[in-house]
Amino acid sequence: MKFIIQKDYLVQSVQDVMKAITSRTTIPILTGIKIVATDEGVTLTGSDSDISIESFIPKEENDIEIVEIQKTGSIVLQAKFFSEIVKKLPTNQVEIEVDQLQTVIRSGKSEFNLNGLDSEEYPHLPELSEQNILKIPTDILKNIIKQTVFAVSTSETRPVLTGVNWKVENGDLICIATDSHRLALRKAKINSNEEETYNIVIPGKSLNELNRILDDDNESVEIVITENQILFKTKHILFFSRLLEGNYPDTNRLIPTESKTDIIVNAKEFLQAIDRASLLAREGRNNVVKFATLSENVIEISSFTPEIGKVVEELISESISGEELKISFSAKYMMDALKALEGTEIKISFTGAMRPFVIHPINDDAILQLILPVRTY
Amino acid sequence: MKFIIQKDYLVQSVQDVMKAITSRTTIPILTGIKIVATDEGVTLTGSDSDISIESFIPKEENDIEIVEIQKTGSIVLQAKFFSEIVKKLPTNQVEIEVDQLQTVIRSGKSEFNLNGLDSEEYPHLPELSEQNILKIPTDILKNIIKQTVFAVSTSETRPVLTGVNWKVENGDLICIATDSHRLALRKAKINSNEEETYNIVIPGKSLNELNRILDDDNESVEIVITENQILFKTKHILFFSRLLEGNYPDTNRLIPTESKTDIIVNAKEFLQAIDRASLLAREGRNNVVKFATLSENVIEISSFTPEIGKVVEELISESISGEELKISFSAKYMMDALKALEGTEIKISFTGAMRPFVIHPINDDAILQLILPVRTY
Repeated sequence: MKFIIQKDYLVQSVQDVMKAITSRTTIPILTGIKIVATDEGVTLTGSDSDISIESFIPKEENDIEIVEIQKTGSIVLQAKFFSEIVKKLPTNQVEIEVDQLQTVIRSGKSEFNLNGLDSEEYPHLPELSEQNILKIPTDILKNIIKQTVFAVSTSETRPVLTGVNWKVENGDLICIATDSHRLALRKAKINSNEEETYNIVIPGKSLNELNRILDDDNESVEIVITENQILFKTKHILFFSRLLEGNYPDTNRLIPTESKTDIIVNAKEFLQAIDRASLLAREGRNNVVKFATLSENVIEISSFTPEIGKVVEELISESISGEELKISFSAKYMMDALKALEGTEIKISFTGAMRPFVIHPINDDAILQLILPVRTY
Repeated sequence: MKFIIQKDYLVQSVQDVMKAITSRTTIPILTGIKIVATDEGVTLTGSDSDISIESFIPKEENDIEIVEIQKTGSIVLQAKFFSEIVKKLPTNQVEIEVDQLQTVIRSGKSEFNLNGLDSEEYPHLPELSEQNILKIPTDILKNIIKQTVFAVSTSETRPVLTGVNWKVENGDLICIATDSHRLALRKAKINSNEEETYNIVIPGKSLNELNRILDDDNESVEIVITENQILFKTKHILFFSRLLEGNYPDTNRLIPTESKTDIIVNAKEFLQAIDRASLLAREGRNNVVKFATLSENVIEISSFTPEIGKVVEELISESISGEELKISFSAKYMMDALKALEGTEIKISFTGAMRPFVIHPINDDAILQLILPVRTY
């Protein structure tokens, strides 16, 4: 194998596949990056066996030559060293030459000799049949991930809750995440063959990594779903993730359909008030703040920790309708939910102090955040 | 105590004194910030008993009112909570009122009640007689610190080496730091009463904190030195540090006065070549790289770790004079030294492969970095 490549493209590509690589793997070859040079260009692959990322660097793009392939071939190089080396090479032209497993990297007056590993030993990525391809714009996909993934469970006691449930039906995508104390739901339109339905659970970790790798543009991401795997395809990147096994709980019955108290409030002001009220709560009872409706559209948020002190925040809401309410909840869950919502005005619908309550932007039913209260009053 | 203060000034001042506060202190009151309101303004104090920082906020500055003192007094508030609270207050006007030890902080519709501690229990800062005041511009002081402090020892086996030795004599300041493997020396002019001489050791940690707190301007810092303490005074900040006990070793005899091989090289190119050469060395023999002079002003820097691979860097130097040389040294020490030097062209003077060598900017004898080689050839 021998090729000459523009450093910037190589660095970017290495950075992308590095997101799948962990040094804590039990499979030694997965600490490496697989490099394959064909007549079309260079493909890099990184994997931790849960997530696999393939990044393709074409020979040329927009009539500009990026790679000059002099001899096709393949090699696996230690990711930790290779990624550091390419970042620090002195010139923008990098030559990589492999003889047996000995790999030489040249750039300017700098020459690295690395011991490579046999690429035949690198596990094959799944070949997914691409009959049913879903399509969604990248920026919407990124938003969907951001608005749900934070609510997955971090505990392995119910592994299926560490993932986000994706349901596709009739061109609708419904994404749900819950750790059983709070729930995030986001709906979106998805371009699909309307006959196909899916109900899968994608590991939260995979979605976080995918979010980091996607550019913030509105080109489409293609999605292929099989029984055990999901593949996200962008122009030059293939992102594979395994799916979680097990049935995701039916969360529909959790979401209240009516409410006794409705509040409309400015999201940013509310977030800042909760943030301040939680400053003293953080040390006390698990970060819990109290929320009460007062007269004349005033909301009071407070917390009290005897050893430290207390804080009282008052906030004028746009409107309070329905019954008076006193309720306690986790400030952290509320702040996570508020950060995930878009829009300046939000509506919170309560059904009493002991029942889950629902937050969404006014006039937008595609996003919903649900939080279970804490019993303190 | 009661006063109304501009939030920005309070936040800055809290940030400054926080640099002296650690949560790992064994003296509970030192986890607090002492706040004293007098008719002149508000003084905040933080201390970990090694370092103490006092920040003064005057009643007014440039005819703009900063603090309105309504009642003088003092209190100690938990630094962790107080610093978080002031940062997040909603409006730029902050009212602080103390009744007994109960402290109320008000800003907009936000009200915090904190349990304070009695300021009488807060240790008194030393009162230093200010007969002999040294003066040095802030930017030069910051440079001096940056160019020496990284070379102090991190091991407590010889505590005196964890500090930087400052000698003042005839208006000259000489600063030396060494961990016995490398040494950094910086000379500067200092404005002093020429009869006074000092030979003290300032803890490296104190200098690092001082550097973080000083603004990058050329106003003067006043320095007062006593037997056990040093005080740095800027316009609104007093920074106290204890001094280290014990005699600093005489390092004069370590510094070679003649050389056998002299090399002049571009500092940045040399730094980058060393950085790359150390990429593979990092895993191997304690980060050691080899350095050799070749013909025609070429320098070769290399490292070899059998399990990983090898790297060879070539660099054209401005000049090589004297004997041929092969030497090995720590890439980390060399990079630390190069980052501390100013100027683009540096001179390295060797006295053989087993002897310490000296690096300084060409035409500048005020800065000197010395490194002991490693025996590998």
